[in-house]
Amino acid sequence: MFKVIDFIQTSRDRYLEELGRFLAIPSISALPQHAGDVRQCAGWLADEMRRIGLENVSVMETPGHPVVYGDWLHAEGAPTILFYGHYDVQPVDPVELWESPPFEATVRDGEIYARGAADDKGQVFMHLKAIEAWLSQEGRLPVNIRLLIEGEEEVGSAHLEEFVQTHRDLLQADVVVVSDSAMFDRGVPSICYSLRGLAYFQIDVRGTSTDLHSGSFGGAVVNPAMALVQILAQMKDRSGRVKIPGFYDDVRPLSDEERAAWRRLPFNEKQFQRSIGAPKLSGESGYTTLERLWARPTFEINGLLSGFTGEGAKTVIPATAMAKVSMRLVPDQDPDRIGDQFEAYVKKIAPKTVDVKVTRMHGGRPWITEYDNRFVQAAGRAIEQGFGKAPVYCREGGSIPVISTFQRELGLPAVLFGIGLPDENAHAPNERLDLGNFHNGIVASACLYDEIARAGR
Amino acid sequence: MFKVIDFIQTSRDRYLEELGRFLAIPSISALPQHAGDVRQCAGWLADEMRRIGLENVSVMETPGHPVVYGDWLHAEGAPTILFYGHYDVQPVDPVELWESPPFEATVRDGEIYARGAADDKGQVFMHLKAIEAWLSQEGRLPVNIRLLIEGEEEVGSAHLEEFVQTHRDLLQADVVVVSDSAMFDRGVPSICYSLRGLAYFQIDVRGTSTDLHSGSFGGAVVNPAMALVQILAQMKDRSGRVKIPGFYDDVRPLSDEERAAWRRLPFNEKQFQRSIGAPKLSGESGYTTLERLWARPTFEINGLLSGFTGEGAKTVIPATAMAKVSMRLVPDQDPDRIGDQFEAYVKKIAPKTVDVKVTRMHGGRPWITEYDNRFVQAAGRAIEQGFGKAPVYCREGGSIPVISTFQRELGLPAVLFGIGLPDENAHAPNERLDLGNFHNGIVASACLYDEIARAGR
Repeated sequence: MFKVIDFIQTSRDRYLEELGRFLAIPSISALPQHAGDVRQCAGWLADEMRRIGLENVSVMETPGHPVVYGDWLHAEGAPTILFYGHYDVQPVDPVELWESPPFEATVRDGEIYARGAADDKGQVFMHLKAIEAWLSQEGRLPVNIRLLIEGEEEVGSAHLEEFVQTHRDLLQADVVVVSDSAMFDRGVPSICYSLRGLAYFQIDVRGTSTDLHSGSFGGAVVNPAMALVQILAQMKDRSGRVKIPGFYDDVRPLSDEERAAWRRLPFNEKQFQRSIGAPKLSGESGYTTLERLWARPTFEINGLLSGFTGEGAKTVIPATAMAKVSMRLVPDQDPDRIGDQFEAYVKKIAPKTVDVKVTRMHGGRPWITEYDNRFVQAAGRAIEQGFGKAPVYCREGGSIPVISTFQRELGLPAVLFGIGLPDENAHAPNERLDLGNFHNGIVASACLYDEIARAGR
Repeated sequence: MFKVIDFIQTSRDRYLEELGRFLAIPSISALPQHAGDVRQCAGWLADEMRRIGLENVSVMETPGHPVVYGDWLHAEGAPTILFYGHYDVQPVDPVELWESPPFEATVRDGEIYARGAADDKGQVFMHLKAIEAWLSQEGRLPVNIRLLIEGEEEVGSAHLEEFVQTHRDLLQADVVVVSDSAMFDRGVPSICYSLRGLAYFQIDVRGTSTDLHSGSFGGAVVNPAMALVQILAQMKDRSGRVKIPGFYDDVRPLSDEERAAWRRLPFNEKQFQRSIGAPKLSGESGYTTLERLWARPTFEINGLLSGFTGEGAKTVIPATAMAKVSMRLVPDQDPDRIGDQFEAYVKKIAPKTVDVKVTRMHGGRPWITEYDNRFVQAAGRAIEQGFGKAPVYCREGGSIPVISTFQRELGLPAVLFGIGLPDENAHAPNERLDLGNFHNGIVASACLYDEIARAGR
């Protein structure tokens, strides 16, 4: 293990040079004209995986961009990690806002700038370098590992679920490790152990067969936009609680221990408020901002459309009104059950003077791997060794669909082992990765394999 | 008077031929390429007015299309009518839906088809023919009359208010007569004696400086679309009454006599409901459909826009939400006072967690000339002579801006002497005018001048 760490510490310059080659390939999955680059990147990655000693390396076809697979499975009796990452990147427009070319990695002020530096080539490469260090210095890894690096994460992982379903044997493991997220804050390494789920709906309200003149008809017919706002206004009470009956039935309460831990986090409410330009923060009574974001479900209106929305005044009674609404769900809420409750409630409160249709658009389960799970704790120790300080344990308010896919299809606990920073412009111009975090991350990854081996199967 | 009526009865064929020439000129005021046709139509109209014996006929310039003016002022001691109509027409697209060319008047099944037949050339021409009959058969008119025929009604009468303000002396009169509307129903001639006014607003709500990710921020910041729907939902109570404090203060109550008269009107609620394709009619408790449409104020949402409104699902918390709302006003509500009440109420109920801006877009006073006004009753008798049955007295739910202009600028009572039908496609393909109503209308117009003379100054 000392040799492994030593090797990593003395390879810094080489790592940068190699990462630069990975970052130079414009593997933009969303743009058809870059399909060849995406494939070239998969080939480059497979070559690198073979070079460092991974086995069974293969560029595996999907109906879209290929998946790159490789493994090392000789740690008999030890747990098996399924590592997930992606080699595709976001488009670069508006390219004129980049201070250096997006596909020429450039180091400035201790950060490496390039599209994909943080999301996710840098974080994938950190594991490849940790594996290389183990295999070159010790001739072995302490754990078994399977790597699944996809090429379609930035286009919604269109074929990943199907790939997982048809390759269950190839993906057998004890724990999923994902390095595709950010730490809590600069200087505050973290382990995220829970994500919220999602239930997304469209509500369509129809009043009449066509738009009507508000003078000739106003007062004698229902206005579907008014019916819609009356429905939506009944979704939350004054204390910020969602009024859908049964909505909170399956919400796992926060433990006193978790609440206490979160209160110790270096989170500045004022700064958060200023950063989003809100006149005031607001949310469910009785909870702090972090609790509202991480452990409480929400009801949000995502879109509204009805009638005349252009410049000026048009005296129309709209025929229809539409809302997109969604709820962020927390353990142990179930998007299907929430969908049933929501539809029943809308049906109950909708005026009988309009036709109301609810369409289920999209759903995802919330995810949690308890922070006292042995793999989560192993990851925490690895972070401490890599970064010189214990990580904070946090949740996140968003969803990472692939985590839900692995949970649902393989039933595995997962560890989010992310070393990006919240302000590294993952989907914006001037994406970058902090080089200190990158190097500490390689050390932490090398330690992670050892810690997971010690945690046992 | 007998000679006048006789002359009208024997001139039917000639009237059609002459009306056809008026309708042949494509005086589409909205389209710049027809500006020359609009001017040619003004010239044609002025020639016709001179030919029938009107005096001081003039094509008067405005910053837009010209106004045609003419008068006959030799009925000493008799009242003076200010007649308003317009010679411009709507565009004809989609022209392929016309069964005969829009500018070749064609008679089918007792109706004359052409753009402008009902709105408003046919109704203007009806008065010219009545005046012609009087002057040619009696050598005089029983009243004084000033005709103001504008060329911009279909583009919002852009310069009419200015014209009226700068020609007050030229337009001095005792009563305004407008023939630019429809009767209650086929076979049900009517006199409309009141129109609703309008107060139109835009509400803009801002929550944060930019759209936010609903996962990363949902639950801890206010959603401006939710704030907006909560504001809008408080505008009406369950009984359909508007909740803005003071909103009903100036509403003139319906008399028992009016309510009784309206209940006798041949109005079929079921048919009305089917015609607009509504699952159910609805409105303010305690009022019939016609009362809700004609004599009660409304609150309508005319438009809603916020966040993501395209296909599919986007998990965004919108930064802003917008609504267009308007109220139809009835006598004696004042749009400015209503605006003050509305703004104060929005300010009071808006959450403090968002910025809310109310913009006043447009306002118009309600109009009423009591149905027992002597000119209104004179018009009723004229209708009875022309159509062989007494008219019904009704109101309308919409607004006719020029009526408000005359009311505000000249302070005159007005008579809506309209002989179109509600289904004559005024702004649609295959516009038409019922020839029976056209001929009865000429007789009624001839009688109107006599009846107004009898009513006295």
